[in-house]
Amino acid sequence: MFNVKVKSEILKSIIEVTSPLVNEVKLNIKPDALTLRAVDPAHVAMVDLHVDKKAFEEYKAEEIELGVDIDKLGGIMRLSTSGDIVTLEHNEETNQLVVKIGNLVRRMALIDTAGMPDPKMPNLDLPAKIVIKASELSRGVRASEAVSDHLALQANKDNFELSAEGDTDTVNLKLPKDLLLELKAPSKCKSLFSIDYFSNMIKSVRGEEPITIKLGTDNPARVEFNIAEKNGYVHYLLAPRIESE
Amino acid sequence: MFNVKVKSEILKSIIEVTSPLVNEVKLNIKPDALTLRAVDPAHVAMVDLHVDKKAFEEYKAEEIELGVDIDKLGGIMRLSTSGDIVTLEHNEETNQLVVKIGNLVRRMALIDTAGMPDPKMPNLDLPAKIVIKASELSRGVRASEAVSDHLALQANKDNFELSAEGDTDTVNLKLPKDLLLELKAPSKCKSLFSIDYFSNMIKSVRGEEPITIKLGTDNPARVEFNIAEKNGYVHYLLAPRIESE
Amino acid sequence: MFNVKVKSEILKSIIEVTSPLVNEVKLNIKPDALTLRAVDPAHVAMVDLHVDKKAFEEYKAEEIELGVDIDKLGGIMRLSTSGDIVTLEHNEETNQLVVKIGNLVRRMALIDTAGMPDPKMPNLDLPAKIVIKASELSRGVRASEAVSDHLALQANKDNFELSAEGDTDTVNLKLPKDLLLELKAPSKCKSLFSIDYFSNMIKSVRGEEPITIKLGTDNPARVEFNIAEKNGYVHYLLAPRIESE
Repeated sequence: MFNVKVKSEILKSIIEVTSPLVNEVKLNIKPDALTLRAVDPAHVAMVDLHVDKKAFEEYKAEEIELGVDIDKLGGIMRLSTSGDIVTLEHNEETNQLVVKIGNLVRRMALIDTAGMPDPKMPNLDLPAKIVIKASELSRGVRASEAVSDHLALQANKDNFELSAEGDTDTVNLKLPKDLLLELKAPSKCKSLFSIDYFSNMIKSVRGEEPITIKLGTDNPARVEFNIAEKNGYVHYLLAPRIESE
Repeated sequence: MFNVKVKSEILKSIIEVTSPLVNEVKLNIKPDALTLRAVDPAHVAMVDLHVDKKAFEEYKAEEIELGVDIDKLGGIMRLSTSGDIVTLEHNEETNQLVVKIGNLVRRMALIDTAGMPDPKMPNLDLPAKIVIKASELSRGVRASEAVSDHLALQANKDNFELSAEGDTDTVNLKLPKDLLLELKAPSKCKSLFSIDYFSNMIKSVRGEEPITIKLGTDNPARVEFNIAEKNGYVHYLLAPRIESE
Repeated sequence: MFNVKVKSEILKSIIEVTSPLVNEVKLNIKPDALTLRAVDPAHVAMVDLHVDKKAFEEYKAEEIELGVDIDKLGGIMRLSTSGDIVTLEHNEETNQLVVKIGNLVRRMALIDTAGMPDPKMPNLDLPAKIVIKASELSRGVRASEAVSDHLALQANKDNFELSAEGDTDTVNLKLPKDLLLELKAPSKCKSLFSIDYFSNMIKSVRGEEPITIKLGTDNPARVEFNIAEKNGYVHYLLAPRIESE
């Protein structure tokens, strides 16, 4: 059983953080939370999402897996406006997800979850932790897009630094500890990442909201932030790129 | 003679309801009203528009037919902003329509009306009448576009229902009498329509404005609403599509 | 040496008036002003820009020429928002322009100015002077785009007139002296210009701002307006087109 009511903007935020990585996803419904974990087709990034039942206006669910076309659900949600309460209901007979927005009833077929993997979140030792305002990080990433395909993130006990090098142009964003919300880096860490993926991961976080980055050296990064009015979170894992020189 | 002054937004609304069906139209100017009637090139839909002289700031006209390129007139009106008073004047010598916006004088050639038909509005017995808020109807139509090319409208004495069926997905908007502005349906009626045409017909009606639908079984529908601050109306007639099964 | 701080919107306005004519430009830095002069690749128009050091929050400069990719600088400025103070600095060792927006440091390569010309502003005797509100002029130009590729500007002691003639349609904007901010035309003047160029020249001037036009007969026009909170100006020179009949 899955029968919930949720604010339109919360459901939209779940879609927004998932859709840059995958088109189809397996929702793991549990009695106390909705979760999903998925890896993008190129196996470069993983999304791990958890939304507590408290994020919902009403939440009645037993354990079940629902295969959802995320882009299609995003299209349906464009029919709703901020403030709408949306009902999601699993029709077990037809294996459809029934979406109710006001008086409108939209039934969408679910996807067979048989072939969908259950990716494991690797246990990584990432020594550095940076908490930064979304707007600050976003400006660095957007600047980097103009000069390169990849950016370097590095941290030491005093600074966090984002940089990108093109043939003739460079981008550098160096933030001392007091301009960050938090910085812990016992040793110097540096890893290189695809700007495209990194940009997609943070684009849904608005202005002053905090983003947490966990970093090692030539290691994946974890990018974490809250969604659903702090009743949920997204953790992304992003594989590093190897420095060419 | 045709020499009128009209609020920019009223002239824009006349263009907006006509241009989805035809590019060129014959305006039938009368001493007390501006009217037009046109059928789209595929002969699926008819528009019948009537704007009373009261809708105009000034209105001096004798009976005349003016062939107008509606898209070109729409382009000219984009030079005006809400609140502008626009002057339209027929120059009989050059057979041009003279459009004055502020100090700007824009002369556009009129089209020969000789080949333009005078479609007759068929006399149809459509037993059901539904009056519905534009926003409610619009949401149903937009949802339907994602699953099919055609939608079904049906009414009985208790409900009005809009539905669309795709291969795997469906849309259903069922409104009991008390959620409608008006419902009269002596018997059960049902007809199928092209979503594309239907969507175009209602797209200019904003939020809470009422739309009237007159419906039969496997019969055309009439879609009616007011324009020009209730000093005018549009009636569309839309041919049904035949149910394939 | 070149090391200045400037409001984001002032730097953006310098880019906005230059980029329609050229992609790469030589900035002539002087101790008391930033200037540039450039001719478009088709040699139809010249831009002559002067921004006083008073337009800057801080201004430290010795005489130097900097070859700048204007489109790239425009892209960088999109990272800033209105109210940001941007630092521009010439790094003489690397020959880069260093742009600082908040904590972000963006280094862009400068272009070799060796091949870049120093166009001379011809000394023209243009008898007519018209000062007109940007919005009024802009509406005339936009209307003209729909009917022709070129427009005529003419002035006499009583009126300024903008007109365009298509095969079947025309545009005419005739303004008597009292609807202009200023009009001086000792004799009748008339010249024809490319709408495309003319439109580009005035598009950055907002609503009620004044634009000065200096006009002769079959002669170039000068189009002049202030930028940088009246601490700078742009003068365009636009070659006439020859009337075909």
